[in-house]
Amino acid sequence: MNQIERYLAAAAGKDEVHAGDDITVKVDLAIAHDITGPMAVEQFKKIGISQVFDNQKVVFVLDHIIPAATVEAKVLHNVLREFSREYGVKLYDKGEGVIHQVIAEKHPLKRGSILIGADSHTCTAGAYRVLAIPVGATELAATMATGTLDLEVPEVCEICIEGQLQPGVYAKDVILHLIGYFGTAGFTDQGVIYTGSLMEHLTMDDKMTISNMGIEMGSMISYFSDPAQPVGTVKEVYTFQAEDIPASVACPPNPGIVVKAEDLSATKISQVVIGSCTNGRLSDMLAAAEVLKGRKVAEGVTLLIIPASVDIAQQMEDQGLNRIFREAGGMITSPGCGPCFGAHMGLLAAGDVAVSTTNRNFPGRMGHREGKVYLASPRLAAESAVAGTIVPPGSVVPLGGLANELEF
Amino acid sequence: MNQIERYLAAAAGKDEVHAGDDITVKVDLAIAHDITGPMAVEQFKKIGISQVFDNQKVVFVLDHIIPAATVEAKVLHNVLREFSREYGVKLYDKGEGVIHQVIAEKHPLKRGSILIGADSHTCTAGAYRVLAIPVGATELAATMATGTLDLEVPEVCEICIEGQLQPGVYAKDVILHLIGYFGTAGFTDQGVIYTGSLMEHLTMDDKMTISNMGIEMGSMISYFSDPAQPVGTVKEVYTFQAEDIPASVACPPNPGIVVKAEDLSATKISQVVIGSCTNGRLSDMLAAAEVLKGRKVAEGVTLLIIPASVDIAQQMEDQGLNRIFREAGGMITSPGCGPCFGAHMGLLAAGDVAVSTTNRNFPGRMGHREGKVYLASPRLAAESAVAGTIVPPGSVVPLGGLANELEF
Repeated sequence: MNQIERYLAAAAGKDEVHAGDDITVKVDLAIAHDITGPMAVEQFKKIGISQVFDNQKVVFVLDHIIPAATVEAKVLHNVLREFSREYGVKLYDKGEGVIHQVIAEKHPLKRGSILIGADSHTCTAGAYRVLAIPVGATELAATMATGTLDLEVPEVCEICIEGQLQPGVYAKDVILHLIGYFGTAGFTDQGVIYTGSLMEHLTMDDKMTISNMGIEMGSMISYFSDPAQPVGTVKEVYTFQAEDIPASVACPPNPGIVVKAEDLSATKISQVVIGSCTNGRLSDMLAAAEVLKGRKVAEGVTLLIIPASVDIAQQMEDQGLNRIFREAGGMITSPGCGPCFGAHMGLLAAGDVAVSTTNRNFPGRMGHREGKVYLASPRLAAESAVAGTIVPPGSVVPLGGLANELEF
Repeated sequence: MNQIERYLAAAAGKDEVHAGDDITVKVDLAIAHDITGPMAVEQFKKIGISQVFDNQKVVFVLDHIIPAATVEAKVLHNVLREFSREYGVKLYDKGEGVIHQVIAEKHPLKRGSILIGADSHTCTAGAYRVLAIPVGATELAATMATGTLDLEVPEVCEICIEGQLQPGVYAKDVILHLIGYFGTAGFTDQGVIYTGSLMEHLTMDDKMTISNMGIEMGSMISYFSDPAQPVGTVKEVYTFQAEDIPASVACPPNPGIVVKAEDLSATKISQVVIGSCTNGRLSDMLAAAEVLKGRKVAEGVTLLIIPASVDIAQQMEDQGLNRIFREAGGMITSPGCGPCFGAHMGLLAAGDVAVSTTNRNFPGRMGHREGKVYLASPRLAAESAVAGTIVPPGSVVPLGGLANELEF
């Protein structure tokens, strides 16, 4: 068995499981947000039981449209408020941040725990070695009743990356490069275990960026290998050298259209988004602030800074980053998903072009179908905000002062 | 002539003007925002001239729906970006704040200057002795072409308030009390000059709160008297004692339904909004923070903190207020109008009840027509956020620590 199979076997109460087996696992935490939560609640109520399987193991987070941008969004918030009051489940309803970040911060799970979430990017938790599986709202409702999830044990592949990244190349570039290489269906319904000296030594922020976007190559489980354990038998091993990975950009209309940043001809932009469950953590904000300190956002460009959680927002303030962003002409919003999925806080009109650190760039994802979204690292996004066009990292040289003044 | 007539005469190039005279005044600054600006631009283009009367005297501010909550909002932003580029007029498009606050901070005008704005609350500038006149988008377009405004000299009344406010009573209570007393049509199309020892000694923040809501009793010009000049001849003088003014709340469905805070029976609330051109300044945030320090927002209540400008946002951070708000469970948004006029960032569903420091509470103003908005001071709003019901000031006693630690 490989590392993923070992934990699935434990959760299923079996000695062994293998790809293709139909199993039922015990769920340690079931989560949903303001879009999927109300759907799950509706389905759950149809089941007709008076309590959830364990009210400590169901958590809702309002993150997609908070503060409510529409009356309809507020109705969804109210549905979850009422349900959480009635059933005694935890609801984060005060803008605590994006669900995947809030869960990471507030609900520590042991390695190998089973987390299911009614959101594609639930896979983010694979960074801290949780088996994190995205499900639909109806499946979540069933789990809310039973505490279990039926699934077929997935095929598992290993992606091994050795070495060190070049300057200007970040975790975001690693995952964009992989999505470009394998395609958006590269690992559909499979699990991926990340190994190798690069992957082992990444920070937790960086690991979360990579596991977050596993779903963009179809992977249902992303998992950072425990170097203390053997990986075990996998279907296939893919090996990369970190030094070969370039600063990368995913071009519209999907995250699989990945090019080297230096190969993109100067493309005029009107918006830059730095945030989301992919890249809204403190290290992302530091990378952006280093570029933006003492600089101004280009005329005609809207720069949105969206902390992934309220704790990160406070850390940004404590480290002086918010002042840097404000002085550069950036807008710092309340924590949450921001415009990532096209509901509010920075939508694009036809003809608008955005560089975004988020995870998806399908047509219409961030507003109008004829608005374009290029996905990139916070560093590249910040440099592009200053340049007013998409530029490769290193085009806008930091003016310095950040490291000494802020001591990091 | 009274003080308002004296400045209107100067702006019209006349020795004397009196109520009822039709005059044409030179305009010193013409302003509009993301809702009215594009309408004015459309009308202006129909006039068919190639430039505005003076590109230093036309200013646009994006504040109503920024960051863009809809594709349509982004189209409006883009219209103003294009116009400002083409005609060389100043556009604040980076979330600098609510238009009336941004103009106060960034466009100092001499006393008696003529400011016209395509927004009802343009009257805010009367606090700093500018003759500030709200106009429609079509009138603004004409002024953009000619640099002048045709108007009928208004009747002017004087409101004189002597003495000192009781503890827990703020500028917001003063203006709510006046609106309750005179009604929402009390001074329709008239000017009001504020005099008396209370009004003279208010801070600029407080004067702006009062002049801001002059329009809610119909007044087209609000003006804080220059104590160095005689007021002059007015139609009527109304005198109040500050000590008689109670902490007040304007109940739905309009700002004229004003009751003493202590007479409101406990009303359960689901949202509190602290911000806007009425009460989004530093002193407002300090009043709220004093209550919220060390406290938590009640379960089921959304607390929105919306700085009126990016400069105020930075001052809030510098004074440690943002940490207090975050720890209490408040959401700090980017500067702007927030949910005040029902476009985004905290809309109400049917059945929701809000306490808000904003200026209007008509049905549907902040979302669903069956959501209710009570208007009050930041102090009362903050106490209500903690209590979970509308409470009069003094119900939630500050735990202290703010004054000493922050030295104000």
